[in-house]
Parts: sequence; C-alpha cells; structure tokens
Amino acid sequence: MMSELSDSLDLIARGASDILKREELQARLQLGRPLRVKAGFDPTAPDLHIGHTVLLNKMRQFQDLGHTVIFLIGDFTGMIGDPTGKNVTRKPLTRADVEANARTYAQQVFKVLDRDKTELRFNSEWFDAMKAADMIRLAASHTVARMLERDDFSKRYKSEQPIAIHEFLYPLVQGYDSVALAADVELGGTDQRFNLLMGRALQEQAGKPPQIVLTMPLLEGIDGVQKMSKSLGNYIGIDEPAIDIVTKTMKIGDELMWRWFELLSFDVSLAELARMRADVDAGALNPRDAKLRLARELAARFHDAHAAEQAIAGWHAVVRGEGDTALLPLHEIATPSEGLRIAPLLVAAGLAASNGEATRKLRERAVRIDGEVFEDAQRVFAPGFTGVLQIGKRNFARVRLASIPD
Amino acid sequence: MMSELSDSLDLIARGASDILKREELQARLQLGRPLRVKAGFDPTAPDLHIGHTVLLNKMRQFQDLGHTVIFLIGDFTGMIGDPTGKNVTRKPLTRADVEANARTYAQQVFKVLDRDKTELRFNSEWFDAMKAADMIRLAASHTVARMLERDDFSKRYKSEQPIAIHEFLYPLVQGYDSVALAADVELGGTDQRFNLLMGRALQEQAGKPPQIVLTMPLLEGIDGVQKMSKSLGNYIGIDEPAIDIVTKTMKIGDELMWRWFELLSFDVSLAELARMRADVDAGALNPRDAKLRLARELAARFHDAHAAEQAIAGWHAVVRGEGDTALLPLHEIATPSEGLRIAPLLVAAGLAASNGEATRKLRERAVRIDGEVFEDAQRVFAPGFTGVLQIGKRNFARVRLASIPD
Repeated sequence: MMSELSDSLDLIARGASDILKREELQARLQLGRPLRVKAGFDPTAPDLHIGHTVLLNKMRQFQDLGHTVIFLIGDFTGMIGDPTGKNVTRKPLTRADVEANARTYAQQVFKVLDRDKTELRFNSEWFDAMKAADMIRLAASHTVARMLERDDFSKRYKSEQPIAIHEFLYPLVQGYDSVALAADVELGGTDQRFNLLMGRALQEQAGKPPQIVLTMPLLEGIDGVQKMSKSLGNYIGIDEPAIDIVTKTMKIGDELMWRWFELLSFDVSLAELARMRADVDAGALNPRDAKLRLARELAARFHDAHAAEQAIAGWHAVVRGEGDTALLPLHEIATPSEGLRIAPLLVAAGLAASNGEATRKLRERAVRIDGEVFEDAQRVFAPGFTGVLQIGKRNFARVRLASIPD
Repeated sequence: MMSELSDSLDLIARGASDILKREELQARLQLGRPLRVKAGFDPTAPDLHIGHTVLLNKMRQFQDLGHTVIFLIGDFTGMIGDPTGKNVTRKPLTRADVEANARTYAQQVFKVLDRDKTELRFNSEWFDAMKAADMIRLAASHTVARMLERDDFSKRYKSEQPIAIHEFLYPLVQGYDSVALAADVELGGTDQRFNLLMGRALQEQAGKPPQIVLTMPLLEGIDGVQKMSKSLGNYIGIDEPAIDIVTKTMKIGDELMWRWFELLSFDVSLAELARMRADVDAGALNPRDAKLRLARELAARFHDAHAAEQAIAGWHAVVRGEGDTALLPLHEIATPSEGLRIAPLLVAAGLAASNGEATRKLRERAVRIDGEVFEDAQRVFAPGFTGVLQIGKRNFARVRLASIPD
C-alpha cells in the first residue's frame, strides 16, 4: 500500500543532497504504481561499512513505501577490468568472482534491504550481448567537452594526467543501464551525480521518461572530519562485533551524532530528532543517552536486539564502571612464552598505534587495567592473563593472552 | 619476381610525403615475401577523380613490385552512419548500398590496379562480430589527450565545436583494421597520417610488427592552387570523356605539370622527368609537348590508346586549328523552339558561369564559333545548329542544339 504522497516525499527527501527534479518525483509518485528505483554497486569484493548503508537505507525507505528496488551489480565493466593494464589491482573478474561477490553482497545488504522487494540484477545481462556498433552509437550520444566537465576528468585533463578513452565510455555504460532497466529513480552518492545524469539523458534520447536523480551525501567517519573509508580507518564495518559498533559510535562528537541520526536511523523520525535536539540544547537530555540510542539501533540492525543490549551493557561496565565486563567479547592475543610488557600489549590490542604512544599514555596515567590506573612499564604479562585494557575513557578491549604454539 | 631492393625503394618513395620508417620498410622488403599493403576507402558512393589515383598509383607500384594490395572498404562505420543524427547526408548505408558502391569502386579502380593482385576486403568482416567489451578494450589503448592532438580534433575542441565521443573511436577502428589484416604497410593521404599511426600503435600493442606508414600528398587541382576536389570544380573525373581529360590537363600551368608527372605518370621515370625538365629549361622542349605526353598517358589510362589519340587530335583541331573538329565529342544542348542567344548558349555548354560573364567575354572578342570570332549578342541559334563554341584558347565544346520535346 502506498502511503500518503507528502509523507512519502518527506521520507524520500530525508538526508538527500539533491533531488533532480523534485516536481518530477512528485508526479511519478502520483502514478500510483511501484516505481523502479535503481542503485548501482561495484562488483569488486564488497566489504561494507555503515557509510555505504546511507544509500541502502534510502533504498529501504523506498521499499517501505511500496516501491521496487533494483540492486544493480556492474559486473560487465568489472569483468573487463582495467584494459590499460596500469592498475594491477583491477584484474578482470571472472564470472565465478562476480557470483561469489554477489553472494557476499547479499549476506550484507539484506541486513538493511527487504529481500522480497529487491531485484538483484547484473548489467552483463544486456551488455554481454551488445555489439561494438551499438557501443559506438552509445558513444555518439555525448560530446568530449561534456565528458570533460566531470570533475575528476577535468582535473586530470588540466594536470595532464592520462585519461584513457574507455573511461569516457563507462559513464555511458552506467547511464545505459537505466535505459535497460527502465529506471524511474536512480540513487547514488553526491560523487555519482554526473553519471546519474547520463542515465537521465540517455533515457530522454531513447524517448523514455527520464529518471529522477537522487543523491545522498557521503557519511563522515567517526573522526567527524573525513568521509568514512576503510583506508582512513575511521569506519564501522557492518560485520563488526556489536560491541565495536557501540564503542565506535559512542566515540563520535555530538554534532556528528545528529548527522548520523538523520542518515542512519529508521527509528527516529525527523520530528522526534528535532525534539531530541531541543532537549539536549535545553539540558533536559544527556547527549550521551541520545548517542546510546543511536548505537543500540545500529548494533541491533547489523546483529540483533539481544546482541545490542549486551554490547551496551558491556560499554557501561567499562566506561561507566556499572555492570559486568564479562559481557564484553574477548580478543585473543597471541603471546610469546616469555610474555609481553604493557606497551606492546596495548599495541597488539589495537588501543595504541605504537609502543611510543602506549608509553606516553602510561606516563600520562591514562592506562587502566580492569578499571585501575596502571603505570608499571616493566611488568610482564604472561600467557593466560585475562583483563580489560583501557586507554582514556572510551578506548578499551577485553583481552586474553594466548600462548603461541611452538 | 621481386625487383632489386634499391630500385624498389626508389619507386616506392617516388612522390611520397613521408615514410615512417624508411629503414623498417627496407628491412621488410628484404624479407623476400610479398608484403601486405593496405589502403582504406570510404564506403560512400565513390566517384573518383585523378586526385584519388595518386594513392591508387602507389598501390599499383607495390603490385608491380610483387606485393599484395588490400583495398579495404570501411563499411562497418558506413553502416553506422552518423549516430548523432546531425549530419543528414550521412545516412547509414545498407548492406546493399555497400555492395553497390563496392561494384562502382571496382569499375573505377581496376583502371589503375591489377585485379589479380588486389585483395578486396570490408572491415565489417571483423567488426560486425566484435562485442562492446572489445570496443571498450580498444578504447583503452589511447588517451583523450593523444586523440586531441589530431589536428581537426584539436581545432574543434579549442573553438568549442562539439566532438561526439564516438569520433574518438573511429581512428581506433581504422587502426584495428591493420591488426586484423596483418598489414605490413599502410598507404594514405597526408591528412590520414594520424590515423595510420594508430594502426602502427595498435599492432605494437598486440605484439605484432608495426606497419610502415607511407603518406602521399594531396594532388592540387587544375587551378594549381587548391587540392583537387569535386566541390571546388578543379578536378578531372576518371570517368570523364577522353577529350575532357586532355583539355583539362592541357590547361594546367607548367610548374603543376611537373608535379602531376611525378605523382601520376607511370611511363616517365624520375630520371626521364629530370631530363625533360632540363630540356624545357634549355628551350629544347616546348612545355606544351611535355604536357601533351602527360594528357595522352592519362586519357589512355582511363580509356584506351585509340581514344587518347582521338582526343589529342581533337584538341589540336580546335586549339591549334590543325585537323578535324569532328573528332570532338558532341554535347547535346536542350533548346526551346524559339532558340537561344549566344550568352545562355555558352552557359548551357559549360563554358561560362553566367550570362554576365558570357556577355563580357563577347565584348572582349574572346568568343569564337568554329574558330571565327563571334560578337553578335542578339543572334538566335535555333535547334539543329551544330558547331564548336570557344572562349579564349582552351575552353571549347562541340555542341548540337536539340529541340525540347513538347
């Protein structure tokens, strides 16, 4: 059942950077049929973090409104790889790779998407059969100058970095997918805006109604500064343990929290969000409690309600000294038989980046073991030791030192 | 049988603008096998003039040296036409169009080429089967910057004239033809240099010996200024009557004559050409007699020796007053029953561009009929009139006025 139009529009617009064009979206929603909502994904080994779920959430919202979501895997170009051979990390994928990656995607994305309202498609369906002549016709649809308007192309061209000609074809391939799928709406990150507009143009050239383009912002990582990414280490993976999701979420700043609520929460409506924010401003709500609500929702989404509660309790036990730290999951640390001093142990537990940093924290009396300040740089921890290591208030891990087998 | 290497090289280099690379050509010739010499032709309705035969002559020279010439018709892109739809004159050709045009080519080019040593090929042979993925791989072989180095692309880009992306694919298509054909040498006009080098690069990328690129200059038209072209009206069509070939050739300037000898004559070697030129400079040879030799050779090539002799005799009769003007072919001019005055008659005979020009020539006493100066602007020529009309010395036509049927 379709919900009321203005509610639908409000939900769809929540968090969106841009909707092109909003009046077309309104008209399309009024058709009263399920819309075909496309989003494209890389066919390379997926390992999603919650930054990626901003888009998945938007897809889910469309599903909840009764629409059909098309999860499109761009395997056609993935199987071509990088024909220039310059990028050795972009080897051509085999059909088996693509299928394995699709299964990995499925395991992850159906934590957010409704499996029954998701059409999983591969663009090799139409591109494998496409002839060179049709690719030439497709290439005729746009000019070189138009393509050089794309930000990254323009920068590379001006700085005399090479752009291989096939790179001009890939946005057209992506755009043609919208023609093949008869997409009503295409979703993507703001960095995809140019490519999404290609789909719109190609549909128009094919005499079809042009898709509405909806872009979502790129989520800032837990540092609150840069966009969330694996390589920056500021991410929360959706396969991470519930305690890590909670711990990392509890570390974000208050301002970022409101942003994450807008982009990541299903439970908190925009109206309720505004109320919470007013309460925090008035001192009636502790921002930590708001953050706990967000952390609980995220942990429950990627695990379940019980795991989320356990993780929240564990966090309380360590950070607030309330409750049983045994609720925390145990990280096993491989330990030589002669044992480890505190500095390398903190590094091995992922709490410090280097022995130097660990030693400095020790001197600052910022290191705790099982809640007690610890200062002895020389003490040796032998295999068998179990305890909660902590630096500052929010960095902690429950560890057990395991012998390295001879 | 292969002729001696240095003679071969001299003949091949005759008139060439550029050979890239000459030492590679020498090495390839030393292989002692027939080389595969490719030249590409447009699949659109061919109507060749002697400017086109500069290339055909070079192909013929390779054949005479024992090599295999590949006459390649680029029908693949011809059947695509102009996918932007902007150029209405470039409608996609059908298979039947291509075959009809190939027959027309054959009728014309075998006046120059040796049919038995010519491989007639169509690039649809390999491109019709090519997949879009392979076109993408082909596109990856070159950069946008490299393609924008091509003169016409560079000019259009700078002057903000649109370049459709598929236009970047066409040089690659042409280059790939050399890979498919395993060409040893590719011939083309100087304006084709960039595209010929693509073939060289693509062969190298495919791990094959790169073709030698040999470019021929564009022949100047009978005006001696601009390159020969249909649209400029300064051409000699290879299907024109022998008398027109002779008459037009006899109009060219002396300097251009030497150029035409170099590029168009098979009968006159470079050594003999140098002697003729020295004789003309020394006053021992009338340049008109040299030109008659060239005119005779061309007329004989596109007709036969007898027709050439007749045409030369006709030219003598009119221009020199020696011999029988009845040897000249008769142009029939459709004439209204009330007849025509001299000015429109000269226009109808193709001797003046307008009544105004004809009238001016009349006043200048430059018009002759049957060799006698004619000045009577009012005289009416009735259907049935037959005579040789002439403006100046070298513009003439034998005409007969025929009634227009009621």
